[in-house]
Amino acid sequence: MKIIMAEHAGFCFGVKRAVDAIEKALKSSSEVWTIGLPIHNPQEVSRLEAMGLRVADNEREIPDGSEILIRAHGEPLSVIKNLQARNIKVQDMTCPFVKKAQDMAENLSRGNYFIILLGDKKHPEIKGILGHVVDENNAEVVADENEAENVAYHAKIALISQTTQREEKLSNVAGILTQKCSELHVCNTICKATAERQDAVKELVKNNKIDGVVLIGGKTSANTGKLRDVIKSQNNKIEVLWVEDENEIESNLDWFKNKNLIGIAAGASTPAWLIDKIKSNIAEIGGMGN
Amino acid sequence: MKIIMAEHAGFCFGVKRAVDAIEKALKSSSEVWTIGLPIHNPQEVSRLEAMGLRVADNEREIPDGSEILIRAHGEPLSVIKNLQARNIKVQDMTCPFVKKAQDMAENLSRGNYFIILLGDKKHPEIKGILGHVVDENNAEVVADENEAENVAYHAKIALISQTTQREEKLSNVAGILTQKCSELHVCNTICKATAERQDAVKELVKNNKIDGVVLIGGKTSANTGKLRDVIKSQNNKIEVLWVEDENEIESNLDWFKNKNLIGIAAGASTPAWLIDKIKSNIAEIGGMGN
Repeated sequence: MKIIMAEHAGFCFGVKRAVDAIEKALKSSSEVWTIGLPIHNPQEVSRLEAMGLRVADNEREIPDGSEILIRAHGEPLSVIKNLQARNIKVQDMTCPFVKKAQDMAENLSRGNYFIILLGDKKHPEIKGILGHVVDENNAEVVADENEAENVAYHAKIALISQTTQREEKLSNVAGILTQKCSELHVCNTICKATAERQDAVKELVKNNKIDGVVLIGGKTSANTGKLRDVIKSQNNKIEVLWVEDENEIESNLDWFKNKNLIGIAAGASTPAWLIDKIKSNIAEIGGMGN
Repeated sequence: MKIIMAEHAGFCFGVKRAVDAIEKALKSSSEVWTIGLPIHNPQEVSRLEAMGLRVADNEREIPDGSEILIRAHGEPLSVIKNLQARNIKVQDMTCPFVKKAQDMAENLSRGNYFIILLGDKKHPEIKGILGHVVDENNAEVVADENEAENVAYHAKIALISQTTQREEKLSNVAGILTQKCSELHVCNTICKATAERQDAVKELVKNNKIDGVVLIGGKTSANTGKLRDVIKSQNNKIEVLWVEDENEIESNLDWFKNKNLIGIAAGASTPAWLIDKIKSNIAEIGGMGN
């Protein structure tokens, strides 16, 4: 069995930057908090928790005067202000690409644009960007083209994308909104890492000898889900095995039967050590004659 | 033979405003100039010329110290400045919708946007808008989606539409340009009259009992050409008879044979009196038993 790696896979710049900052902070403090998982990868979170990371479900759980690191997804402005008011030491590790989307949302809403966010309204990144709009009554989250079709007319609309969206979807929604306003400002805030990973899996599955793709990433990771969508939209017949860790390789040995060429792709929250582990596990399966 | 009129047809606000201004100016002056035909309708131009209108091919033909009326299509800034420098009395009757596109081109190019104009590079309206961009090296005219695909990457792109473009084309081009920049500003400067006329012909040809459409408008009229495109894109089989005046009805009597239901549509530069004349001519053909 042979393996081909997607050219771009694993940790993106923003996630690496936040994880590095957590590790650094834990060298001088015995306890550092985040709100929500700092990355959508359970193994990496366990590793950091062993070093002293505490993960809170919400801001109220965090003790006054403690230390918090804002994860790459970002937070609404109100959350950061509340934390600071409670004398909590805040280190903001919002990914610079997400930060740009937040700043756009703030500035364009001040400029009387109605803000349309393209993304998943339950995703923390979108909640954070929405929390930078001056008046949330003048903003709406749309998940796709169908929801964009239902947007009401506004003189000025600004379209801002979740950083992990697909380029094609942003283009389609921009086209639809062009007819819903007299001025449309589109912020292509899809991050390069996301686009690179998406292009890389497109390239990967263009190889029609591939029998299946092992996709590594947390099951709640938005960008990993998008990678699966890209694979499926390129070739709906290709089999995708979405795994979070190496244990899921062992519990899916049957999937590898009769497969000669396996592609490997990984979402932006997958650390390099996990990719390497899974790669060698798959190589071992190949060695076992599967 | 029965006739159905498109709900919106003929003179738009901008053209009517310019023609009214020419008529008014000719009441107090024996000679008033325009550069190029004030409207794309030969019959209406002849009527105005009989009242004292002089049509120049270019600005140099206009005598120093004379009086000129800028037609609804507008002119580049440089032309207006040159005329004023030659002590020519300039009355600017640029259509307010075109003016808005010109102002957008000027302001957005000052804001370091690369300007993309969607339209026909030979059309005076596009030449006029282009002549408001601060540096024409930072602007490009694209005719359609294919040309938009070839636009190079620029950090900030502003897309401005010729007022007579089709909404669908602007949407498609906006979608394409979303992937050519990090910020896209789309000015939907398609005028309401254009959209109304396009929607009205769409409605007209939805009636599948219609045997053909008589389309009235100058052969060089961009908005009339777009109406034909809309008809053809709705139903490529429908026959369109594009006429400039009632004489073309008489020279195409064969076209009306075996037709029971005729639709009538008219471009924005077609005066009401011409529509009425053609309507009654067609009714007469019907009365002759065609």
